[in-house]
Amino acid sequence: MRELSAEPGIIVSDEGLEEDFLYVRLLEKIKGLIRNSTLKPGDKLLSIRSLSKEQGLSITTVYKAYSELEIMGLIEAKTKSGYYVRTNPRQLHTASKELKELTNTEAIGADEMSTEVYKNLGDENIIQLSLSAPAISLLPKAKLNKTMAEIVRKSNDGCIGYEGIQGNDLLRKEIARQSFNWGGSLTDKDIVTTQGCMEALIFCLLAVTNPGDAVAIETPGFFRIVNVLKNLGLKTVKIPTDPETGPDLNYLKTVLPEIKACLFTPSFNNPLGSCMPDTHKKQLVDMLAEHEIPLIEDDVFGECYFGETRPRTCRSYDKKGLVLLCSSVSKTLAPGYRVGWCIPGKFIKKIIEIKITHSLTSSGPTHATVGLFFNTGRLDLHLRNLRRKLSAQCMQYSRAITKYFPKDTQLSRPQGGCFLWIRLNNKIDSNELFQKAMEYKICIAPGNMLTADTDFSNYIRLGIGNPFTRDIEKSIETLGELIKKMIENS
Amino acid sequence: MRELSAEPGIIVSDEGLEEDFLYVRLLEKIKGLIRNSTLKPGDKLLSIRSLSKEQGLSITTVYKAYSELEIMGLIEAKTKSGYYVRTNPRQLHTASKELKELTNTEAIGADEMSTEVYKNLGDENIIQLSLSAPAISLLPKAKLNKTMAEIVRKSNDGCIGYEGIQGNDLLRKEIARQSFNWGGSLTDKDIVTTQGCMEALIFCLLAVTNPGDAVAIETPGFFRIVNVLKNLGLKTVKIPTDPETGPDLNYLKTVLPEIKACLFTPSFNNPLGSCMPDTHKKQLVDMLAEHEIPLIEDDVFGECYFGETRPRTCRSYDKKGLVLLCSSVSKTLAPGYRVGWCIPGKFIKKIIEIKITHSLTSSGPTHATVGLFFNTGRLDLHLRNLRRKLSAQCMQYSRAITKYFPKDTQLSRPQGGCFLWIRLNNKIDSNELFQKAMEYKICIAPGNMLTADTDFSNYIRLGIGNPFTRDIEKSIETLGELIKKMIENS
Repeated sequence: MRELSAEPGIIVSDEGLEEDFLYVRLLEKIKGLIRNSTLKPGDKLLSIRSLSKEQGLSITTVYKAYSELEIMGLIEAKTKSGYYVRTNPRQLHTASKELKELTNTEAIGADEMSTEVYKNLGDENIIQLSLSAPAISLLPKAKLNKTMAEIVRKSNDGCIGYEGIQGNDLLRKEIARQSFNWGGSLTDKDIVTTQGCMEALIFCLLAVTNPGDAVAIETPGFFRIVNVLKNLGLKTVKIPTDPETGPDLNYLKTVLPEIKACLFTPSFNNPLGSCMPDTHKKQLVDMLAEHEIPLIEDDVFGECYFGETRPRTCRSYDKKGLVLLCSSVSKTLAPGYRVGWCIPGKFIKKIIEIKITHSLTSSGPTHATVGLFFNTGRLDLHLRNLRRKLSAQCMQYSRAITKYFPKDTQLSRPQGGCFLWIRLNNKIDSNELFQKAMEYKICIAPGNMLTADTDFSNYIRLGIGNPFTRDIEKSIETLGELIKKMIENS
Repeated sequence: MRELSAEPGIIVSDEGLEEDFLYVRLLEKIKGLIRNSTLKPGDKLLSIRSLSKEQGLSITTVYKAYSELEIMGLIEAKTKSGYYVRTNPRQLHTASKELKELTNTEAIGADEMSTEVYKNLGDENIIQLSLSAPAISLLPKAKLNKTMAEIVRKSNDGCIGYEGIQGNDLLRKEIARQSFNWGGSLTDKDIVTTQGCMEALIFCLLAVTNPGDAVAIETPGFFRIVNVLKNLGLKTVKIPTDPETGPDLNYLKTVLPEIKACLFTPSFNNPLGSCMPDTHKKQLVDMLAEHEIPLIEDDVFGECYFGETRPRTCRSYDKKGLVLLCSSVSKTLAPGYRVGWCIPGKFIKKIIEIKITHSLTSSGPTHATVGLFFNTGRLDLHLRNLRRKLSAQCMQYSRAITKYFPKDTQLSRPQGGCFLWIRLNNKIDSNELFQKAMEYKICIAPGNMLTADTDFSNYIRLGIGNPFTRDIEKSIETLGELIKKMIENS
């Protein structure tokens, strides 16, 4: 495994960001070509010089991209011959087959572990690597503050009274406008606002299931959903999920008769970072439509893509109103605001009834603030900057892990989102690693907490939302040392 | 039925409020003496002159109080003899026996009705009489706005980031401080903040039950709870509830073996406005403690009392950590903020786990604003004013109903809260009345929507949160005319 720390541009300063952006774009492009088999195993790549000339990029940028792809195990350099697509990529690949054979033993204390991990939320003395959200420093704090002050000053009632049942009017209009970006075509009447994406997901589950029903979810997948399903008296059917292409649709097909709904995160599975290709999304929507099964689409990471374009949503392929899309601003604008929404297709009447029952209205001031912020047209520029930074940070964290973690570590190559999914040596119990890391005030998310009822005890999720500072690098180094010691002592 | 419209002080101006306050206090005192049987049926009351002298009140105030008590049917004037406690009070009394015999047929379309009633929330053209919250004009809008601006300006992250898991520190400290008012003795560590009282109630239900369990609730009682229980796969056991003394504890005793938890609103049942006497509260807590059954105490109206002192909470009698108290600022400060909390006793660990799963954190800016507002010490004065106004409004609405509604109308005499519960002629379908009233842009809450699965189709709830203006009086007059026409045409 090569060390990359001596390379220029790893600690990205603001000046380096433009170069880093071009670099990331090139990297994603080549990864895409390999993924969709335009470049096949054994194919020779253009030389560094030729590619640099063809793309109008510096030699350094192309060299960095090829080196990175080599580390990822996607390409290999052959002496005096050039770069070739590898036959056997070394990246993390949790085979569907392997997952299917896992016994579904309930991990002990996943709930307790969540409390342990999150109890220090907001504590500034902790290096917080357990979260899947961008750091506050990447978010437009000053502009949001100004917008909120304006809202409070100008609104008739200072947002003290109940807002309308479907939610803030301006916010819903703006979300409808944005829907063009991801293949939608909505009006404000199609949208119901909620307290964050999680409330939207819960409302959708309540709308399309009854206690005792079974719901298909991804494994690994968003861990809090497993607990929600349990709390609502719903059964789970786990669909093995590929780190590149998402849930296994062939497997899903076999369990269709058992399930009442699906709840997937098609664009950037948490923790894998995988994105279902458009063809899979369409196939999924068509397959479920045939059986009249609703799909709850968690699109909370949809805007955090590292590639060139916004992934389409499953909702955009929906012809029957069976896809219920849920999202929020928690990963893009203000995690602490708890501003989310759902676009529940033909279930909208039911969702409104559930909202009246469970929360009546959302929190007025934050929802109005996001509505007005969207309306000022500042969002696009902010999101472009945010994506560039997240993508660069993801790379920086990946390199640091490659450098400081043991050689048998495997890590995900996310296509978007705010986290890395890391497979450690089999001997590692990541709950134990969490405890040891907390002694150094480093907070990570252990695998079993995240997957709840399948054994991922040698996995961890590392949030990449914080800018890659020396402190972060040092904490990754510390984690690496802890892991090495644990292996030695086992 | 006497008409009171010619009496002074009915349309209360700001100058009249102090007098009205003394009047309400006197009224509540006498009601209390009758209720706790210090004054028994047939007892003679002090003459107006003597009472005026004894209490240092004007003759007018005492006369008004006696007249009101006469209208309520609590006392009667005997010619040339004076005032006596009535043998048979004419007030609304839903006999426990009667309720027990009601068949539990599910009212059709209670969910749809809620949507109908609440779909115009926030529409300023509607005279909103369906809500159980004070009007914005009774709330400290300017001070809250100022506080929020301060929060946004001064906080490190503008409340954009996630706050701590248990909720805003200052807010929890202030709630702990307030707990002395209602017989509690808490620290911030005992408290978990939530998005309004409803989220607190839902978290508590999730903490102490599993799908399929049965929960005892009041009938009539807070209607949205019935739907929540249904959504969570829980069964309901309805406890008949008296308009004066709350749930029937003897009846509750007989169903204890069937239930897993109780969810009651001991201080000001919604819609009845009844308050359990302290002895009943203690008896309830002791009875449940003996069987280790948790009590979820909805205390959202606890601060909206019309009497002289804050009613004690069941929580204050709890020795085993089995009472989970839930409340919010929705009825006292800012309905639209969605700021609530629960004090879950020994279930606190479980509640934190559920909060992590279902919402992670609350909305930062509003929670911080309420915390700081509490901290500035402005709350007590505001609450004193609010109670005085609500109590006076309740009286004004009651008089208008007595004046404009048919003579066979019965109405509750709430001891607190923001609503009147009104029994109309048997021929009235209150869903139909709702539709007819909406044609005049008057929004009321029909009985079946509020009670969900027991027949209260000739009842309505009328919110008394709006100041009693000419417009309000006219809309009550209109409602009265609509009811009279409906009876004639039936």
